[in-house]
Amino acid sequence: MSQHVTPRVRPELYVEVQQFYASQMPLLEARRLEEFLLTFTPDCTLEHIPYGWRFEGREQLLKEMSARRGDPDKPRAEETSARRAREENIAYYDGLVYRYWFDRMLIVPAADDTLKVRYQAMVSMTDAQGKVSFEPTTVVEDVLERRDGELMTRSRVVTHDSANWADKIHNPG
Amino acid sequence: MSQHVTPRVRPELYVEVQQFYASQMPLLEARRLEEFLLTFTPDCTLEHIPYGWRFEGREQLLKEMSARRGDPDKPRAEETSARRAREENIAYYDGLVYRYWFDRMLIVPAADDTLKVRYQAMVSMTDAQGKVSFEPTTVVEDVLERRDGELMTRSRVVTHDSANWADKIHNPG
Amino acid sequence: MSQHVTPRVRPELYVEVQQFYASQMPLLEARRLEEFLLTFTPDCTLEHIPYGWRFEGREQLLKEMSARRGDPDKPRAEETSARRAREENIAYYDGLVYRYWFDRMLIVPAADDTLKVRYQAMVSMTDAQGKVSFEPTTVVEDVLERRDGELMTRSRVVTHDSANWADKIHNPG
Repeated sequence: MSQHVTPRVRPELYVEVQQFYASQMPLLEARRLEEFLLTFTPDCTLEHIPYGWRFEGREQLLKEMSARRGDPDKPRAEETSARRAREENIAYYDGLVYRYWFDRMLIVPAADDTLKVRYQAMVSMTDAQGKVSFEPTTVVEDVLERRDGELMTRSRVVTHDSANWADKIHNPG
Repeated sequence: MSQHVTPRVRPELYVEVQQFYASQMPLLEARRLEEFLLTFTPDCTLEHIPYGWRFEGREQLLKEMSARRGDPDKPRAEETSARRAREENIAYYDGLVYRYWFDRMLIVPAADDTLKVRYQAMVSMTDAQGKVSFEPTTVVEDVLERRDGELMTRSRVVTHDSANWADKIHNPG
Repeated sequence: MSQHVTPRVRPELYVEVQQFYASQMPLLEARRLEEFLLTFTPDCTLEHIPYGWRFEGREQLLKEMSARRGDPDKPRAEETSARRAREENIAYYDGLVYRYWFDRMLIVPAADDTLKVRYQAMVSMTDAQGKVSFEPTTVVEDVLERRDGELMTRSRVVTHDSANWADKIHNPG
């Protein structure tokens, strides 16, 4: 077996990618969905595997997120799974502050103005009483593109570490 | 709505800030409080919101931290909240190793020698038997200043994601 | 007491170290053990303290890891501790996806082509039903060396935050 080779990336680009995510993800956590979607290209795709869903374009994403992301100041939603929440149109993040924790970010420059970024992600949920719980862990593969000078997410594929993630009660009381 | 713009920062400064926190926070975890406070400016402020407390200057901070930070080798304190621990002078971190987990660090250079840094933070607590629990998540906004060539924390505002954080039993058995 | 001094490191090296870990640790998580061990020097050492074990060289590590790391697609192992798993040869990660979470990475260049890296680490375990749990937190001290142009781990010392870590039931049902 051959030697391990660490993928190289210029420090300027590495730091820009870190700052990109650090300014992108708080918009989602704050439910500022239209601003969040401006960090995605108009022709973006977002996919959850296995056994999940695939969304295309900002409009489809906005519709899905507006229906699901809820309001931290409302009472918590009844116990539900991601799949049932979609079927029954439940805002399953009601009553919760959720935060994304990213780690192990590997940045691999691809074509001009295109990057592949892989990382692991975990979502914490804090309720009004201060109880903290975690969604199943995931690995995320993004393609970032530079358009008009700024990085944007072209595609995101979220692979869940539990095959049953979409049927798990995601906010047990 | 206009384009998303990623805040830029020079790689040298980005890395220095990372190394600053990586050398600052272990001092707090190790209860080396006087050394920890040398990473704050003499006129520092530290504030917990909402419904929390505000401390001014190293001396006030040292007094508070000395009373509260406890000893990992002692038995665990009785169940208490942050608010009651202050009222009854309980060292509520007795018997616990606590670690801060930071993520999503966004660095925005402000004036000369001044930086704004925003991140999310979570505290883990590991007890002698190896049980791990988590305090409610927070978002932290720091102002860092360079004095005599070294970065220091000028102010820290910790916004807790649960409005009831200070009344939560923070170390349930 | 003297001023706090932040250890400096060149941005190119800082980023290379981040990318090194981001390409090293997923190999362990994916149980690609032979590739993982190519990120260690042939004369590497790995030690768990306190009251743990010390391994020397890739061969010893491969033997230990092959016996213990298990298969995420198998049923979960019976409840066990790290110590009993070694005594009774149990693959205690069967049925689990485990991920390492690193934080607070402090990089201190030592001799030519040698770095000291300290960080805190936490292991999450996600089972097939999506339940997430955490092993006790740790602090890790690595020595990295550059050989043939690539960074490799020369030694790793994992200090567990709970003295009883090896006797804890690490995967309670």
